Order: sequence, then structure tokens, then C-alpha cells
Amino acid sequence: MTTPAVPVLPLRPELADEVPYGAPQLDVPVLLNVNENPFAPSEEVVATIAASVAEAARGLNRYPDRDFPGLRQDLADFLAVESGVRLDPSQVWAANGSNEVMLHLLQAFGGPGRTAVSFAPTYSMYPEYARDTHTRWVTGRRAEDFTIDPAAAVALIEAERPSVVLLASPNNPTGTALPRETLEAVLDAAARVPAVVVVDEAYAEFRREGTPSALDLLADHPHLAVTRTMSKAFAAAGMRLGYLAASTALVDALRVVRLPYHLSAVTQAAARAALAHRDSLLAQVADLRAQRDALVAWLRTQRAGGRALQVAETDANFVLFGTFDDRHAVWQGLLDRGVLIRETGPEGWLRVSVGTPAETRAFQDALTDVIAQEEL
Amino acid sequence: MTTPAVPVLPLRPELADEVPYGAPQLDVPVLLNVNENPFAPSEEVVATIAASVAEAARGLNRYPDRDFPGLRQDLADFLAVESGVRLDPSQVWAANGSNEVMLHLLQAFGGPGRTAVSFAPTYSMYPEYARDTHTRWVTGRRAEDFTIDPAAAVALIEAERPSVVLLASPNNPTGTALPRETLEAVLDAAARVPAVVVVDEAYAEFRREGTPSALDLLADHPHLAVTRTMSKAFAAAGMRLGYLAASTALVDALRVVRLPYHLSAVTQAAARAALAHRDSLLAQVADLRAQRDALVAWLRTQRAGGRALQVAETDANFVLFGTFDDRHAVWQGLLDRGVLIRETGPEGWLRVSVGTPAETRAFQDALTDVIAQEEL
Repeated sequence: MTTPAVPVLPLRPELADEVPYGAPQLDVPVLLNVNENPFAPSEEVVATIAASVAEAARGLNRYPDRDFPGLRQDLADFLAVESGVRLDPSQVWAANGSNEVMLHLLQAFGGPGRTAVSFAPTYSMYPEYARDTHTRWVTGRRAEDFTIDPAAAVALIEAERPSVVLLASPNNPTGTALPRETLEAVLDAAARVPAVVVVDEAYAEFRREGTPSALDLLADHPHLAVTRTMSKAFAAAGMRLGYLAASTALVDALRVVRLPYHLSAVTQAAARAALAHRDSLLAQVADLRAQRDALVAWLRTQRAGGRALQVAETDANFVLFGTFDDRHAVWQGLLDRGVLIRETGPEGWLRVSVGTPAETRAFQDALTDVIAQEEL
Repeated sequence: MTTPAVPVLPLRPELADEVPYGAPQLDVPVLLNVNENPFAPSEEVVATIAASVAEAARGLNRYPDRDFPGLRQDLADFLAVESGVRLDPSQVWAANGSNEVMLHLLQAFGGPGRTAVSFAPTYSMYPEYARDTHTRWVTGRRAEDFTIDPAAAVALIEAERPSVVLLASPNNPTGTALPRETLEAVLDAAARVPAVVVVDEAYAEFRREGTPSALDLLADHPHLAVTRTMSKAFAAAGMRLGYLAASTALVDALRVVRLPYHLSAVTQAAARAALAHRDSLLAQVADLRAQRDALVAWLRTQRAGGRALQVAETDANFVLFGTFDDRHAVWQGLLDRGVLIRETGPEGWLRVSVGTPAETRAFQDALTDVIAQEEL
């Protein structure tokens, strides 16, 4: 009897017990787990994308333009409309999802012997970017209300001397946007190290009136990078188009580490087609913002385990709420009722994405039912 | 008077003097410089791609399937037809170009403190993959005829103890395919280290009758990875779809380091559409092979600088020829006549891609003219 041959592969030891990252992809009627935009593209948007991709496909035997100037111009134009900040296309960069943008940032400015700093609880992919680039990963803590104390942030930066500081605003999974003063304190401390400050604004289009975007700070801070994505506001998670605004010098550093032709002609064409529909796509964002605020207000009226639910302030298209003595039981109860949300964030909290009105109602009904069952 | 502020960015020192990789993208009538397939997709192929992307766009608000089982099945089916080797979809991996596949390989099996070995002259991107992953890069030399001496390869592997051995077959820029015995000697030596052996078969579909593919060796070698691309044979360089065949264990290691959702729904849809036209697209490959052999034969009848041109044996869609005392002058002379080829490979050699019959004739006419001018 022979033992089956086990392949001996020289896998890096730090990867030996890792599993592929990602939320469960389950087939459930109501998907409110990964902060997708619930509105599928209209047939008009679909037709524009198909026509734009067909045009690109006619030259598909050729490599795409490595520097995609047309798409960078369109993205700069969108940012000018969205935030009032006018950038040169050379200040814009894009890749296959903002996680590839983050990879480029850590390849250029992180790496072996270097440190990246962030503030937890925050996006669970960040440590993976650090691991993939051999960057040391250090997290400070956010306050009880999930804001960042500027003095504590400055102290951590001075103590750790990172080359990259990574701030999500609005933060995932808490929804917390950072005020101008916090960003300025971090930018000043980072300039003295020096470190690049990355503000991850994946959810920025959902911010409430009066919440600033870090784009306003670009003109005075060449070490600032603001990342955005078409996954959320543009309802295009399946397109994988993340982008970044920064100084031209910072963008030029990313051009050195990007793989040549990383952005396909098909992706460039599809993204430009979606950007041409920016007005109708962003009208839905206003809808989702209003629904989000109504969901926050409703959750604040609910009680579980004999106490009122806490709901984090949110400028994103999701809401973090809790606390539950057994959050997994609540998550499972919702799933049993056909509603998938995300078991993430600090112990006892759960995160729900803002869906269509019908999906939000399904979530509310299911949660009411689950809480009532738990209290029997 | 103030000095303009120069941003101080903590760029990694090894990147400080680097420029973005890539051949010049010039606007020239005859482009024979980056081994593209000269045949643009037919309107039938374009229509299938547009329809497939439109269907995907209807669900674009959702993240794509992270594991793309449909595309992996289609790629496995193609390999079975192309090479007679039937693989399970779990043995197939794909990414945005084979350079992202290579990045995944070096992230999983290379990295700091590890070594990758190849044999020069070979593809000029390889050292960049190593640099981007902090993998030590060591090259042995190919023989005068651009083959690899098995004993020398084994000796280098035993001396350097790499975790990755990277072999291009057919090799870029020489066109050289490796015989079975060389691959087996390298695989045996690598198994003892252990190292993963990557055979880059980007140009494999252009191999001549009787030249084997390393796919035949997969069943017995769990540490072998064979990379392929849709850029060349499928005339889809603009689509950025590279892929790999290996043991399931090896593929599972890549799943840990890939960025989640790295392959967009649009790319998956476009690739599956192109694969549905594999028969017509591969008929063009047979054409290109015949043209390539005719071009080799023609070049071997030419003389420059008082001696017969040398032409490397080629199983790819390009031809390395020389030697010229001043290859840059020949390259420039061709460019002045509207024909862009690539100044690459060992000193004195030039590389030309196989184009349409008209493009090949334009190259032949221009070369004849340049050589005549040089000899005046």
C-alpha cells in the first residue's frame, strides 16, 4: 500500500494556514452583506457599455493604452462635478478595483522594512495588502464612537514612523467619516516622517451634507492619496474599477510598480461608458442616502436584550448596529429568513448594507422577528 | 524668491531611478514590435463579446464570482482541444494578463529571502516581477543557439536553491522551445530543492508540429505551472486574460494571494465569448505559423554587412534575426519607413512579429531597402 503523493510546494510559511479572503457568496434572496449598490444598471447604461466594449473589441488584438488618458480625464471630470475639485488627468490613477490601487501604493511606498499604520476597527482587507507586500502592519484604536483622536494618531505616527498611513473615510465597517482637523493633523505628522497618507473614500459619494472629502486637501499635500471606486456609487462592483487622486509625483511612482497593461481595453471602455451616465447613476446615490438615514432612525428605535440598539453615525451606504450578546445568532436568524448581512466589526455589532426599499423592509421585518424570537 | 516645494515621498529606494516598463507606443503604419496578433476580431466575435458583456452588465452592481468556475471550465476545455490534456477546472487559474499570474506565483512561492532562477536572454519583464515581490533574481545563460543545457540548468538550480524556476517556451525574444528532456531535468532538480517550475507558454499555440507542450507533464509534476495567455493566439491582447494550468494544490496557493474579485465580471464575460470562437481564432494561428516559417526562410537568404543573416529557430509568432553591427540604425531605418519592430535580445539582434501578409511584405521591403542603404 502506498501513501498518496503530497506535493511539496515551497509556499511562503506565512501563507500556510491562510484561506482566500472574501465574504461568503451565498444564494440568498436579500443580499445586504458586501455594501453593493442594490440598483442594477438600467438598460440604457447596459446598452452604452455594450456599444463601448464592442468598439474596443474591434481593436482587441492590440495591447491597451498603458496610461489610459481618456479614462483618467473622465474620472477627473467626474471628481470636479462631485466634489468641486479640478484635477489634471496626470493626478488620477486607476486599477482593477481599489484593492489593486492599494497594492500599487504599498508596493511603491511600503514593503520590507517599512510600516503601514491604520486605526481599527477598519477594513479587513488592509492587513492582507500589508501581508502581500511584506509591509509591517500596525493599528491604533479608534475611540468608542469610532472616530480617531488626532493627538493619539499623531503620537502613533511619531512613535512608529510609518511610510504609509491608511485612513478609511467613511470607514468600513463603521461608516465614520473623518473631520478635516483629524486629516490635517495626520497629514502634518506624516509629512515630518515622511509618510504617504492614503484616505480610502470608497463610500465618499454617500457622505452627508457638510461632510468634506479629502480631495479638498490635495492641492496643499503632495503626500496625500485619495482612493475612490466605481463599485459603490456607480453600481459597478462587477467592473472592478478603483481609482486614486494625488499629486502627479505620487501617481508617477505608481506607474513604476504597476504591471504593464494592467487595465484592459474592455475595462477602460466599460468604465468610460458608465461615467457617461454619471448623472442618472448618482441620482440613485441620493435615494440611497435618504434610505440610509431612515434606516438609522428606525434602528435607533429598536431594542434587543433589554436595551436600546446602538447605531454608529454613518456617511456610507451601510449601517453598523448592535450590540447583541450573541451576534452570530442574530446573523443566522436573519439568514434563515432570507436576509444575508455581515458579521463584522467589533464584538456584538453587525453591518447591514442599504438595499432597495423592498430589501430594507425585508431586513427590518426579519430583524424584528429575530429579536422577538430571541426574547421568547 | 522661494524654491518650488518638491514633494518628499517615501518611494522605495530601489524604485527611485526606474521608469514605467513598456515598449514605445508609437503611431506607425506597420506595428510588428510587441508580438500582437495582426488580425482584429471579426464582427462575429465582436458581436458575441458585446452580447456577453451586456448580459454581465445587467448584474454589474454585484461583485463578480471570485472563483470564476465558468471561465475556468472553458479554459480547461480549450486546453483539452489544443493539447489533448484534460484538466479539472480546479487546475486552472486566471488573472489580468499572464503578468498578474506571474505576480501571484512569485507572491506565493517567491518573496524576501527567496530566489527565482531563469535563463537569459529571456523575457525582459521577469526581473520586474522579481523586483516587485522582493525575490532575488538569478539568471543562467542560454547556449549560443538559445537552448538551455540541461546539465548546466541542473547545476544552477542545485547551487542557487531557488524556490521558483522560470522558463519561457517558446522563449521571448528568441522563439526557442524547450525539448521534453530539458524540462524533465529541470523538474527533477527543482523537486529536490523544492522549487516550483513555471513554464511560460504565452506563445505555445504557435509551436511547430512535433514541439511538445509542458501541459503533458502536469500529471506527474505537482510543482509545475504552465502559463498561457489569450493575448496572442486569441488575438485579445487588449482583453488582458492570462491563465495557468497546474496541480489543484498549486492553484489553491494562488487563491490565497490574489486580490479578492481580481477578475471582473466584464473580463470573465469577454473571455468566455472569445473562447466560444476558438475554432475560427485558431485557424488564423495556422496561417501565422505558415507565414512565420516563410519569413524565417526568407530572412535566411538575406545578407547584411557582408555576411548571411542569422535567424533563430522559432516556435512563436515572432522571429529574432541578426546580427547587425549597428542594430539601432537598422531599427531606426525600418521605423523611418513606417515599420516598427523591437530592438531587444542580445546585442546585434532584432525581433520582428509576424504580421498580416501585407505587413510582412512591408517589413521585407523596408529591410531590403535599409540594408541596401547601409551598404552604400
